[in-house]
Amino acid sequence: MPVPGPGYAITARVEVPASASAAGELAMAVGHVGGVVTAFDVVEAHTHTLVVDISCNALNEAHAGEITAALEALPGVRVRKVSDRTFLVHLGGKLEVQSKVSLRNRDDLSRAYTPGVARICQAIAANPADARRLTIKRNTVAVVTDGSAVLGLGNLGAAAAMPVMEGKAALFKRFAGVDAWPVCLDTQDTEEIIRTVQILAPAYGGINLEDIAAPRCFEIEARLREMLDIPVFHDDQHGTAVVVLGALRNALRVVGKKLSDCKIVICGVGAAGSAIIRLLASDKPGEVLAVDIDGIVHPSRQGMDANLVSIAGLTNASGVTGSLADALVDADVFIGVSAPNLFGAEELRTMASDAVVFALANPDPEVDPAIATAHAAVVATGRSDYPNQINNVLAFPGVFRGLLDAQARDITDAMLLAAAPAIADVVAEPNPSFIVPSVFDAAVAPAVAEAVRQASTVMDTAQV
Amino acid sequence: MPVPGPGYAITARVEVPASASAAGELAMAVGHVGGVVTAFDVVEAHTHTLVVDISCNALNEAHAGEITAALEALPGVRVRKVSDRTFLVHLGGKLEVQSKVSLRNRDDLSRAYTPGVARICQAIAANPADARRLTIKRNTVAVVTDGSAVLGLGNLGAAAAMPVMEGKAALFKRFAGVDAWPVCLDTQDTEEIIRTVQILAPAYGGINLEDIAAPRCFEIEARLREMLDIPVFHDDQHGTAVVVLGALRNALRVVGKKLSDCKIVICGVGAAGSAIIRLLASDKPGEVLAVDIDGIVHPSRQGMDANLVSIAGLTNASGVTGSLADALVDADVFIGVSAPNLFGAEELRTMASDAVVFALANPDPEVDPAIATAHAAVVATGRSDYPNQINNVLAFPGVFRGLLDAQARDITDAMLLAAAPAIADVVAEPNPSFIVPSVFDAAVAPAVAEAVRQASTVMDTAQV
Repeated sequence: MPVPGPGYAITARVEVPASASAAGELAMAVGHVGGVVTAFDVVEAHTHTLVVDISCNALNEAHAGEITAALEALPGVRVRKVSDRTFLVHLGGKLEVQSKVSLRNRDDLSRAYTPGVARICQAIAANPADARRLTIKRNTVAVVTDGSAVLGLGNLGAAAAMPVMEGKAALFKRFAGVDAWPVCLDTQDTEEIIRTVQILAPAYGGINLEDIAAPRCFEIEARLREMLDIPVFHDDQHGTAVVVLGALRNALRVVGKKLSDCKIVICGVGAAGSAIIRLLASDKPGEVLAVDIDGIVHPSRQGMDANLVSIAGLTNASGVTGSLADALVDADVFIGVSAPNLFGAEELRTMASDAVVFALANPDPEVDPAIATAHAAVVATGRSDYPNQINNVLAFPGVFRGLLDAQARDITDAMLLAAAPAIADVVAEPNPSFIVPSVFDAAVAPAVAEAVRQASTVMDTAQV
Repeated sequence: MPVPGPGYAITARVEVPASASAAGELAMAVGHVGGVVTAFDVVEAHTHTLVVDISCNALNEAHAGEITAALEALPGVRVRKVSDRTFLVHLGGKLEVQSKVSLRNRDDLSRAYTPGVARICQAIAANPADARRLTIKRNTVAVVTDGSAVLGLGNLGAAAAMPVMEGKAALFKRFAGVDAWPVCLDTQDTEEIIRTVQILAPAYGGINLEDIAAPRCFEIEARLREMLDIPVFHDDQHGTAVVVLGALRNALRVVGKKLSDCKIVICGVGAAGSAIIRLLASDKPGEVLAVDIDGIVHPSRQGMDANLVSIAGLTNASGVTGSLADALVDADVFIGVSAPNLFGAEELRTMASDAVVFALANPDPEVDPAIATAHAAVVATGRSDYPNQINNVLAFPGVFRGLLDAQARDITDAMLLAAAPAIADVVAEPNPSFIVPSVFDAAVAPAVAEAVRQASTVMDTAQV
């Protein structure tokens, strides 16, 4: 059952008759229709009337309308205007470009721009490695999308993807001091995307692919990794895989099982599921079954694409077939990155004792978390309103901080495998409701960065 | 004769025997070899020795070496290290990306990123014009180069062009509050450049082309103007043309001549020269002659490219032929955007009385400014060490401020023609040494922006 959250918050400016009970009446009216009051500010006080801003969380647009109507229905109350607080946050965009050099006088200009800058250009032309020393390349990541799989919303295109990419860039700065820039491409042609990123790459120290639809994202990532001398990370794949593996490490600590003894079911073989399976394969798991809409993936299935063939090669060593329900029998771990409401109590009961369930489909998980909690020992979701939120913010800022500091030229499975326990180990004593640290835990990004740096063996000779 | 400037400045950290005359001796030694001391700081004081940082401007790298040697030669003096102050300014790059939204807690995250951001994406998908309201598009310009004509240095490529583009972006912010981002393209293929900019355009409110070689730049600009719904400005063309026309307006005020009565010689028919001629053509000048390395441009010349054919159609109505010297006879105005040291006193003497000479080749003008000043009434250069510096910084920040504020979809000659007098009129009473305002005059960018806004008739219905 969804609850009103700050993602849908409004502020209503209302005139009310001046009285001691005004605040209480307004709050009760909001509460009566299911809104949650978060702030109450008197902005004008007259002899007979008050003007107040009442802020509240709603469920959705229709619910915000119901709240407004409930306020209007109070005797003597007039709603002057209703602002959507989420839209206010995004007005004018969320990023700005700042100069790090002062430009107060002519001498400053002569050094930062012409004629002084000419020598800097010549130094880089003579020694291209100096770009990492003398330009923003050192600390800058491109957040690249084609807008084809924006959040769970689908193919919205380049312009409509900007608010997400700007937000991502804001998170990069907030959590790891990385300068990130949104690069929203108005093309969904694989070859054009690859070529465009290649053309843009010299200015950046890393590429973060984002919200690009599968299976196109696999080829784009693989080809760019091969051609570029900077790391290419696809957050929907690698970010999710790192956080899932970190969370799984702590979940298994809680239930006292070893990864190599576990039967693990991964449901969903898109960007996230495939990356989880690939990264997990390097971590010596027990039996792993991949399941998609056609059931358990097995090597003799007909009509598999290149990605599915590769997944079939990494999973299901004994070649079983069947449905998700068949796969779940005796499973120790379920990891879902697929679709809402795929199973319930009946299937949960067939899992091994002390089962771990990560139901990460957003906003509606594969299994109702309340039901899962009744049957499994540890439950995690992608949502912030349940314990154990699997959130990529735990990975990507620190991963790129480490890559940039190491001046890494590529990203390896060893680095990703090092990042996962770095996240997990920030939680000193995991318990069923606390297997991952808070995204606001300031220890996370430095720990991840340090792990990635140590796993990086690439040293740039131009380092200063 | 070049003089030591801040574009080549060093700071030497030296140990000297403690004495009252130490500072004087160091400064004299620097001055003796032609260096200019700009700062002197004692960083450590011991009983018998002082450690001081002495900063000075030099001519070039060899000269900096001479200064260091002169310091070393003083009795008892030891140079510990010499830092190049220009390189220090550029270390780590000159830009950073800042978040404009606060991300202190989970509610902030829910609004700026998921789940709240989803509604912003959907709003833009439903109404693309909202991108100018809800993303950084509203205030953001791409500074695009292919690195083929970096300053006067030539074809250095994408990575080596970054320091200039970063500097340009810093100036955009400093002078007009515009968020600009360097887009350095690792291709010099006209079609690829056009297609890449088209693919990137949805995220930007304007395109500033920069340091792209002629004649490629003309086609790129023309094609992009046709295909994009945001203004495309080529600073080497339009920025220079705007500032030259503004400066010319005041120069003619000083000598008391009307543009329509003047014979004007434009030397150099690359990006800048061609744009000056085109913009001038809309301003009702008298006789205009274009001159390039093959002499005066005339309609029957063989082997002209498309640009030159178009220039021939705009100039030389009487179809004269000849050399630069021939063109200069009785000329009221010389505007050079070409090559160093093309003429001298002899040709200057053949010009009309009260001649105006803009010798803008950098760093060495078409004619020695000292000689020009002896013969012409008003002389301007591109250099900061003479009066009347023709500097594009007077134009591009204000032009884009105006374009962005007007949510302009294109840029017209009317806007550029409005910007030129806006720059000129900041100087209330021009005189031979003061025909353009200082680049630090805070009145310039707002005046230019206002002129461009007023000339813009494009009103966006999505304006808020």
